[in-house]
Amino acid sequence: MKKRVYNFAAGPAQLPEEVLKEAQKEMMNYKGTGMSVMEMSHRSKMYQDIIDSARNDLKELLNVPDNYKILFMQGGATTQFACVPMHLLKKCGGYINSGHWTKKAIVEAKMHGDVKVLASSEEDKFTYIPDCSDLDVSDVDYVYYCDNNTIYGTKFKEVPDAKGKILVADMSSCFLSEKIDVSKYGIIFAGAQKNVGPAGVTIVIIRDDLLDDCKPYTPTLLRYKVMADSESLYNTPPCYNIYICGLVFKWLKKMGGIDAIEARNKEKAKILYDYLDSTDFYQTSVRNDSRSLMNVVFRTKSDELDKKFVEEATKAGFVNLKGHKQVGGLRASIYNACDVNQVKKLVEFMKKFEVKYVQD
Amino acid sequence: MKKRVYNFAAGPAQLPEEVLKEAQKEMMNYKGTGMSVMEMSHRSKMYQDIIDSARNDLKELLNVPDNYKILFMQGGATTQFACVPMHLLKKCGGYINSGHWTKKAIVEAKMHGDVKVLASSEEDKFTYIPDCSDLDVSDVDYVYYCDNNTIYGTKFKEVPDAKGKILVADMSSCFLSEKIDVSKYGIIFAGAQKNVGPAGVTIVIIRDDLLDDCKPYTPTLLRYKVMADSESLYNTPPCYNIYICGLVFKWLKKMGGIDAIEARNKEKAKILYDYLDSTDFYQTSVRNDSRSLMNVVFRTKSDELDKKFVEEATKAGFVNLKGHKQVGGLRASIYNACDVNQVKKLVEFMKKFEVKYVQD
Repeated sequence: MKKRVYNFAAGPAQLPEEVLKEAQKEMMNYKGTGMSVMEMSHRSKMYQDIIDSARNDLKELLNVPDNYKILFMQGGATTQFACVPMHLLKKCGGYINSGHWTKKAIVEAKMHGDVKVLASSEEDKFTYIPDCSDLDVSDVDYVYYCDNNTIYGTKFKEVPDAKGKILVADMSSCFLSEKIDVSKYGIIFAGAQKNVGPAGVTIVIIRDDLLDDCKPYTPTLLRYKVMADSESLYNTPPCYNIYICGLVFKWLKKMGGIDAIEARNKEKAKILYDYLDSTDFYQTSVRNDSRSLMNVVFRTKSDELDKKFVEEATKAGFVNLKGHKQVGGLRASIYNACDVNQVKKLVEFMKKFEVKYVQD
Repeated sequence: MKKRVYNFAAGPAQLPEEVLKEAQKEMMNYKGTGMSVMEMSHRSKMYQDIIDSARNDLKELLNVPDNYKILFMQGGATTQFACVPMHLLKKCGGYINSGHWTKKAIVEAKMHGDVKVLASSEEDKFTYIPDCSDLDVSDVDYVYYCDNNTIYGTKFKEVPDAKGKILVADMSSCFLSEKIDVSKYGIIFAGAQKNVGPAGVTIVIIRDDLLDDCKPYTPTLLRYKVMADSESLYNTPPCYNIYICGLVFKWLKKMGGIDAIEARNKEKAKILYDYLDSTDFYQTSVRNDSRSLMNVVFRTKSDELDKKFVEEATKAGFVNLKGHKQVGGLRASIYNACDVNQVKKLVEFMKKFEVKYVQD
């Protein structure tokens, strides 16, 4: 059997090997219960322990204040694009347009009311994060943004100033990658499949005064209050997915928590960006002040060479380096589970590729 | 490590050991790809093969006609309680009320229009399936029913006559357990966590003329057409859950398909019901003509003895035999993954328990 590859996928993405090994070990018989976690009643004491531990560990990792609820939901960020306006949009939702995923969120919000775009970087192909220090939020119910833009490789370096309005963040691709002050937010949500666990579970952190109100047509399972009151056990949750998230949270704690992983993420990103800045063979179109720590977007001088890069990288065991079809080029996603060594190896490969093709 | 138990949980429920072993083997490195299925991009060729195989195998198992789409959705049956009326309810939805889950579906439908209860067994605590041979469907848009009622242990033996109206079935707890004629239905849906796979994925089989229309506020991910057009890959699906379902479908084919599993299910249920009918120590309140093959609901003469039964059974390695809190008593769920031997062993235990306590 081939050894494990270096997987730079944008999501679903690599998971810590330790976590997968633990899951493998427990597959047939979880801690002497005589069954797999997949076979466990969600109403059992043993499953209750699994979901409670996951919630508590996440609360600890992010210092989630007591007036916030942590929910495990389904349907990905796409479903949250609907849940947010179904709960918060009375007259007008305010959106900061930083790319593909915000645009999708805007389309979804328009099903439930008016939308105002507060800032945008669309005119320059989303290669930077718009200035959000003085937004006109006077007529909006909330301010929505996507913190890390997976496709364009951009990231907000400052939390947008919502001027007292409810702040909502899609943190799908940077969740748990660096420290955040949860108390600044009304709602934070994140699909699991980047930094947290397998696809199929979405984390929502919501301030408890925002739970109650929603459009009368909101499906029961999309109601934040229903999920909060039932502690995410209103119906059968994605049990196994939550179990894996729980293992990742424990792994993160063992790694030293968010401070430690943030330091590691900064180190990894610096290695890659420093190299990109040192050569003309690769370019990155992302503005310096907007660079993502999670998704490093770059390209060579031609589409043909990009294609060759992907081919040769794959052969060398570096996989999923093709850029998103929206922007083309190349992309290395270096989420929490990716270690410094993997990035160093990738840069070694990039250097060799440069030497080989620099004269072409 | 303790050996595996006999797990009679109503869902999440036991999975075929063969499937779990396969998943265990492939956990770190799926078929030489160097990664777990959990780490795989849902846009990759290898994941496309996984989801395509799952869909094709299911189509083959159930003889799904070409004018039907098979969708892998999220949010469980509870979310389908909303999706169905959001698509089909123009003026009035028709519901056959056979228990707890239909009642929930009715509450959900009322968010989107009127509801008419076409038949009900509520007056006798849902211990039987109401007669559905001559329903007054004149003013309803569709006829909705729950085929197998997990809590009460009842099952429709005839498909309700919808008289040309769209027929919708919640088959969560009997899906793939016996042959069905898909062409009689407009929509069939089933949460995976009984006969299909781990919780977190919901199978929807829908006739293609029903895809298009929906309420304007229907969230994108709950739109059948969006899911059909994208072949369930509009956003990141619950990849690992679908993979396990795929392994279960392959296992079912290897077992001989639906005919073979139906025969086995009938054999298992007969063993249990024959024994229950042969003794006064245990009673079942379910009417003879309404007995479920999947969930066998029974009780002893007292709540105390029921409690003792659960305790002693658990010690003997027969777990999750407590009845649902709505009805109390005892329940053995004997889904597809449960083999004849497990049922025989359970009956042996029940006999011993009877001998021990018959004089109490």
